[in-house]
Amino acid sequence: MPSEINNLSKLCIHTITTKPWQLEVAVEKYAKAGVKGITVWRDALEGRDIYKSGRIIRSAGLEVVSLCRGGFFPSASAEKRQLAIDDNLKAIDEAAAIGAPLVVLVCGAEPAQPLEKSRSQIKEGIAKVLPQAQKCGVKLAIEPLHPMYADDRSAVNTIKQANDMAEEINSEYVGVAVDVYHLWWDPDLEKEIYRCGENGKLFAFHVCDWKTPTTDLLLDRGLMGEGCINVPQIREWVEKTGFNGFNEVEIFSNKYWGMGQDEFLNKIIQAYLKHT
Amino acid sequence: MPSEINNLSKLCIHTITTKPWQLEVAVEKYAKAGVKGITVWRDALEGRDIYKSGRIIRSAGLEVVSLCRGGFFPSASAEKRQLAIDDNLKAIDEAAAIGAPLVVLVCGAEPAQPLEKSRSQIKEGIAKVLPQAQKCGVKLAIEPLHPMYADDRSAVNTIKQANDMAEEINSEYVGVAVDVYHLWWDPDLEKEIYRCGENGKLFAFHVCDWKTPTTDLLLDRGLMGEGCINVPQIREWVEKTGFNGFNEVEIFSNKYWGMGQDEFLNKIIQAYLKHT
Repeated sequence: MPSEINNLSKLCIHTITTKPWQLEVAVEKYAKAGVKGITVWRDALEGRDIYKSGRIIRSAGLEVVSLCRGGFFPSASAEKRQLAIDDNLKAIDEAAAIGAPLVVLVCGAEPAQPLEKSRSQIKEGIAKVLPQAQKCGVKLAIEPLHPMYADDRSAVNTIKQANDMAEEINSEYVGVAVDVYHLWWDPDLEKEIYRCGENGKLFAFHVCDWKTPTTDLLLDRGLMGEGCINVPQIREWVEKTGFNGFNEVEIFSNKYWGMGQDEFLNKIIQAYLKHT
Repeated sequence: MPSEINNLSKLCIHTITTKPWQLEVAVEKYAKAGVKGITVWRDALEGRDIYKSGRIIRSAGLEVVSLCRGGFFPSASAEKRQLAIDDNLKAIDEAAAIGAPLVVLVCGAEPAQPLEKSRSQIKEGIAKVLPQAQKCGVKLAIEPLHPMYADDRSAVNTIKQANDMAEEINSEYVGVAVDVYHLWWDPDLEKEIYRCGENGKLFAFHVCDWKTPTTDLLLDRGLMGEGCINVPQIREWVEKTGFNGFNEVEIFSNKYWGMGQDEFLNKIIQAYLKHT
């Protein structure tokens, strides 16, 4: 049995989870509710002084866990691949500015080319931005995405692939983000989580749930406990590796975005205490 | 490069692909268009004399490639598991009656229990119906389903799992159905297709395409050439193993079911000749 969660000291929420809230509102509400970490999505920073946003977050007693997201490296066009590199360099600078130790990479995929080619462009892209990440002291987490996103969101679709890639790149600045939504079905999950942790590559842990039925490929994630994922079991595997970071709640949901966000935040906290 | 397809001698269509057509209409239309194989979905047999349906199909010059579908073995309820066994025995009898040498298994999953448990119930279920399959001379194909169906459709989500299970069961009557839609993203696909074929376990090959964007988890499959799957490449791997069976077009699509089915059949044939 995994250790019981009886406080919020490891609870982090992604700003996109409560998308209707502006960053400043989210910070205030999270802090008031006892949430201790925040992962900032880049859209939440639009039009803002990033250093100031970082100060607002820290003043509220929240820790910036990561910046979401970099990646989207593959393209059939060399020009677009360069634009992606530039954008990832910018994301690394933004992470440094806001005080985030990590950028999560949604690696990308190009439907018009073989997955193998997209994967090699991903590796190439990471290699190109790695010096800037090192310089800024910002780590990069390869997030394997569910195979239903293999067409245009990520050609990295299993934790084994992410582990392989991180090991090949072989930098202490490059690791893996484990998200239960993407990986829960994988018969190799437990084994590959241990491999990831033993190699010091387990950089982040994201939670939510898979609902039955799921009515949208992107925007119908569930709260922990609402679906079929055994989140506590996966958390136990993650913690067995020595992982001591945050449990990050990342939910894209038209249903939840459509309700009062105070009520939703309360639901998140209950689901976190009971089903994570 | 895979061998070019320049005739329809290996083209099979699943009745569900042209769902608006009654079985007899589908048979007539397929035959007239030069299609040589048909996979019959059980809903198409409702209210019919199955022996007679088999005769109609053969008289039209079509070969019955398989019956779809058995499976759905797992359940938290022992009573429901027994109902599934009974239904699979019935499917095997129906296959024998219509002259189908194969029943395709959509293995099933129970969201309320661990995948491992569902997988062991699947193995148990197959073992229980295997004697009837042998008696009737009807083979069973485990069809690994895309991981997005791991909640309630199949706990077998990679070809490696299907190969492992077929090898453990170790009967010449149990093999694997390879469907590009479910498996195209898997980095081990080529290797596991060879393994499947070398063991004499490659019983069926299904084709369609993955569209970008895909707007429905179940009913938005594309025609070959419409999406990101390299169907000819996968067919080449399949044929390298010595597979000499049909290429079965299996498309669930609200879009295509909503158009004139004569026009759709013509599109299927063009897509088959150009992109399979």
